[in-house]
Amino acid sequence: MADTHPFDRATTLMRVDPEKSGGALRWRGTTDPEYANRVGPFGGMSAAQVLQALLQHPGRLGEPVALTVNFVAPIADGEFIVAANPVRTNRSTQHWLVTMTQQSAGGERVVVLTASAVTATRRPTWSATEAEMPHALRPHSVARGQELPAGAPAFFRRYDARWLAGALPRKWDGLDTDDSITRLWLRDDPPRPLDFASLTAMCDFFYPRILLRRSMRVPTGTVSLTVYYHAGAAELARVGESHLLGEARGQRFFNGYFDQRAALWSEAGDLLAGTQQMVYFKDAD
Amino acid sequence: MADTHPFDRATTLMRVDPEKSGGALRWRGTTDPEYANRVGPFGGMSAAQVLQALLQHPGRLGEPVALTVNFVAPIADGEFIVAANPVRTNRSTQHWLVTMTQQSAGGERVVVLTASAVTATRRPTWSATEAEMPHALRPHSVARGQELPAGAPAFFRRYDARWLAGALPRKWDGLDTDDSITRLWLRDDPPRPLDFASLTAMCDFFYPRILLRRSMRVPTGTVSLTVYYHAGAAELARVGESHLLGEARGQRFFNGYFDQRAALWSEAGDLLAGTQQMVYFKDAD
Repeated sequence: MADTHPFDRATTLMRVDPEKSGGALRWRGTTDPEYANRVGPFGGMSAAQVLQALLQHPGRLGEPVALTVNFVAPIADGEFIVAANPVRTNRSTQHWLVTMTQQSAGGERVVVLTASAVTATRRPTWSATEAEMPHALRPHSVARGQELPAGAPAFFRRYDARWLAGALPRKWDGLDTDDSITRLWLRDDPPRPLDFASLTAMCDFFYPRILLRRSMRVPTGTVSLTVYYHAGAAELARVGESHLLGEARGQRFFNGYFDQRAALWSEAGDLLAGTQQMVYFKDAD
Repeated sequence: MADTHPFDRATTLMRVDPEKSGGALRWRGTTDPEYANRVGPFGGMSAAQVLQALLQHPGRLGEPVALTVNFVAPIADGEFIVAANPVRTNRSTQHWLVTMTQQSAGGERVVVLTASAVTATRRPTWSATEAEMPHALRPHSVARGQELPAGAPAFFRRYDARWLAGALPRKWDGLDTDDSITRLWLRDDPPRPLDFASLTAMCDFFYPRILLRRSMRVPTGTVSLTVYYHAGAAELARVGESHLLGEARGQRFFNGYFDQRAALWSEAGDLLAGTQQMVYFKDAD
């Protein structure tokens, strides 16, 4: 395993029911300290593990088109089971329900995450990108931050992030910054060829917008995350190990919840994924 | 029932298990021809019926924060069962899984829709709207179209839509219009006080962006729809029967799928909901 990339180690899942070939299949995995958040695992890694479970399902049809992950309870460090169930298979689309469970201190299995996904066989059609890629210096013209800012979570070390705007604040002075825009070049560290699982994790790299907007540390937690995939496996493979341009922003912060959406682009200018999430927050205590 | 609003008739659900008070509860409903799409029911109405099932659940905690609906199979005109299951109840949040089933011609029950939702008790916090409301003439300064364009689905009659940009094309000339933006004032017809269910349905009023972008009728179908709620019941009640400003746009059309996202604003300038959906499309045959 010495040569295994940390991302591949973290998304390794073992079949629980090797004799079953269809229906709901269970996989065992373990949270990885390399992808830890400040408390519990990085949500993007949990989403990648969910996607991995259905990608490995022998009955899978096509490639991911949409994924929604609901974080229903705190995920503890340690072992988990992901069960991926293809609830409906049509001619060119397949609909999935996925749950992640963990054993509680009391010994019973509790659901910590639910998810739904759509996979589909894509065929060449008329295609067009309507969203405009943000202007940005090329990634190799942008310095990589030499050290992590105070309070950065461990999983930041597993990404080569070159911030163009909206890096994690270095001063927590509580001043409202008027906007919550982050723009950056992003890839795995060490570099790793892009695939659906790593793209999924990167969709959650944008830290909670309220920290940026308020320059204030407040408790937050994503409750629901959706990813739409705008590329196939071949397009992702062509991106290889190069950086993605990401841009994220919140729309509204209201009574304990805010949304944030983001787009991830290849350096060549293809919109690869659009994502949004709804995030719980508390006012500072 | 003479005074019942068509929207309330269409979202009326009857308890299937009146003796049960918790856990997964089933409700029976019927698709309504007043909210018919060109084939089957208007997806926004199905989403509203899903939300209604959990709003009526006696064990519900708080108000809707996020909803994702997956259209897994065509919904036939006629009866359906919605089962709403609160899979996890925390101190201030509750996570739901919902399924809609119908009896097939062969007599077995088939899943036609799955959904997840988050409801939550909201508390007053620091709040801010970062997205900018599009500039628009006031709704009463905008003429309402006198007749429905050719090919408009039946449910269009249940909405008072005042198009500012991007109405359903009147000429299907196949010319690429370069953008897929619709901007309009929207409310129920006849007027009805806004609530979570009607707001949910309106999130899906924006017809498939590819029809607008290509000025071409092509087969389409939403596979997944997400709504984020940025207001509470009190804020929605204050909107009353007035129009909402809606703006929708697609980001990328690629090999059979495109996304579209939309925002709905009160006339007073509050962002009430953000929504996105992933839509299947075919090239014209």
